[in-house]
Amino acid sequence: MQAGNGAGPSLMRQEIAQQPEALRATIDALLPRRGEVTNLAADTKAVLFIARGTSDNAAVYGSYLIQAHAGRLASLAAPSIATTYRARVDLDGVLAVALSQSGRTAEIVETLEWAKACGARTLAITNGGASSPLAQVAEVAFVTEAGVERAVPATKTFTTQLAALAVLALSLGAPLDPAELMVVPDAISALLATPLDLEPIVAQLAKVHGVVVSGRGMAYAAALELAIKLKEACYLHAMGLSYADLLHGPIAVVDAQTPAIVVAADSGPTLAGTIDLARRVTGAGASAFGIGGGAALAQACTLALPGARLPEWLAPIGLIVPGQLVTEALARRLGINPDQPRGLSKVTQTD
Amino acid sequence: MQAGNGAGPSLMRQEIAQQPEALRATIDALLPRRGEVTNLAADTKAVLFIARGTSDNAAVYGSYLIQAHAGRLASLAAPSIATTYRARVDLDGVLAVALSQSGRTAEIVETLEWAKACGARTLAITNGGASSPLAQVAEVAFVTEAGVERAVPATKTFTTQLAALAVLALSLGAPLDPAELMVVPDAISALLATPLDLEPIVAQLAKVHGVVVSGRGMAYAAALELAIKLKEACYLHAMGLSYADLLHGPIAVVDAQTPAIVVAADSGPTLAGTIDLARRVTGAGASAFGIGGGAALAQACTLALPGARLPEWLAPIGLIVPGQLVTEALARRLGINPDQPRGLSKVTQTD
Repeated sequence: MQAGNGAGPSLMRQEIAQQPEALRATIDALLPRRGEVTNLAADTKAVLFIARGTSDNAAVYGSYLIQAHAGRLASLAAPSIATTYRARVDLDGVLAVALSQSGRTAEIVETLEWAKACGARTLAITNGGASSPLAQVAEVAFVTEAGVERAVPATKTFTTQLAALAVLALSLGAPLDPAELMVVPDAISALLATPLDLEPIVAQLAKVHGVVVSGRGMAYAAALELAIKLKEACYLHAMGLSYADLLHGPIAVVDAQTPAIVVAADSGPTLAGTIDLARRVTGAGASAFGIGGGAALAQACTLALPGARLPEWLAPIGLIVPGQLVTEALARRLGINPDQPRGLSKVTQTD
Repeated sequence: MQAGNGAGPSLMRQEIAQQPEALRATIDALLPRRGEVTNLAADTKAVLFIARGTSDNAAVYGSYLIQAHAGRLASLAAPSIATTYRARVDLDGVLAVALSQSGRTAEIVETLEWAKACGARTLAITNGGASSPLAQVAEVAFVTEAGVERAVPATKTFTTQLAALAVLALSLGAPLDPAELMVVPDAISALLATPLDLEPIVAQLAKVHGVVVSGRGMAYAAALELAIKLKEACYLHAMGLSYADLLHGPIAVVDAQTPAIVVAADSGPTLAGTIDLARRVTGAGASAFGIGGGAALAQACTLALPGARLPEWLAPIGLIVPGQLVTEALARRLGINPDQPRGLSKVTQTD
């Protein structure tokens, strides 16, 4: 079972393949529980996410989804306000949603306790089970059903968080179709069954020091998540940026030695801008690697991989999958064990 | 007056030197107007910043300052919710604060108009004057007095934004001493009059492809701003991360070829953690370059530069100054004209 030594697929690769099953179990468990969150949030009007690392990227998806479709302000907390400054903030009318895959990151548990003491209602989203410290603190706990994840880079625990956030948006009244969520596992299965030609992109990325990963709106979360994957498992200087932020300064770093990976849903209002960005990158003499975005984005890019066939509001669940596959293959190419990158452990404790 | 060709100091270097004067004029103009914002915000309980690029980094400072000291939730808007998704979000009880140095970035003006239509009260912070489109949309406009800025990398327009945000925090009831704000220009003057030995750090940074820039709490905004400066003017793969986020994955990229710049106030609750981070970086065989943090941080780092002598809540105004000087010197070392990096113009239009 050891990875990266030719003795069989890495744990990370196996866990990527387990995502359809993990998503199905999570959606089956959480979709019937929408009413609990509807009640919990009855007297609130804003959402505050509490998360770090990969879970923070999931929270970015949640914040776009809730603002674009559920009419509520949604933002990400700065945990140091609670744990370092120990400030009292008025959170009356706020639903605090803490995400931690382990449910045991002390900083996140402490920040959710702080939010409760400041007047917020509290929801936990965790793969750590109903008895995890985070679930115990929250009034309602959405437990994702990813099963045990052994590779350090999170894959199935991330995509199941996204599914839980889609249920949250439905609970908060987003006029979206739950049936579309229920077919996500099949769409991911179909994508995983499609032979993806990762090799040309992996070969290009193996030659560079840095890469920009960009997306906008819903797809922005998938871009951020791919950037963190490439940093943690491939030690690549991967900068995740919304395409608007990219144009405000950092576009200067894109050159022949610094490609851009651009991520977009196959439809929706941010696709056109992402295609423009790919054209701007290639026009500057750099390579653009597309993920998702249909034929139009693929055509504007140097190389491209398809995402899953999903509506825009669910697209990030499928858009990260080709990115996970690229990360795993690139790590092996670089001689890194994708299951155990340097400097990291599965539960990160920060104050 | 042209830069980078030996014909005299760059515009960027001149504008760095103009900051004490710009700050003094801004503080003199805005401090007496606190009552206007107190009244504007009377029926609000949260703050929503609207910004991009360098102004976004200023907004990060504002959000920490207001949450740590003024007891209100403060967060950054995703402009695409307004301009791309055209979603309606309930912003009753929210003070929307839009920051744009030019006051003419259409996306920011449009997002502030959206916030007003969604029920928010509206404040503009701009160097573009009272007749700029952004100031015209807002109920109250705080005009910073940086004067014309000609170098593309923002310097004095950024630090004067921070001063305006300090006035905002005072307006919202933060129990901080306005007299401490009034001496900021002198503290920056004293720092600029101190001979800083930039050369060893510039020589090291000239040899690497990437760098991590990290800080926490108030200092996080200065770290983000230095990262964007190094990206836009030096084309360096500079990743700005809070030190907690850094430990959740990206720490893997720090190695002998990827130093970390760590930024901290001379006092305050985040200093100890920043010193620990510097030790962790050097312990991993990488270089840590300190900015601020007093003797204790300098001792934990490979090389260090002092910040200005300021209390923690105002420290970022001084912490970015050595970073600006390093950026300007490094750009010239790399043969880049710091006043006009590639791919950028002074007013960025995104949708």
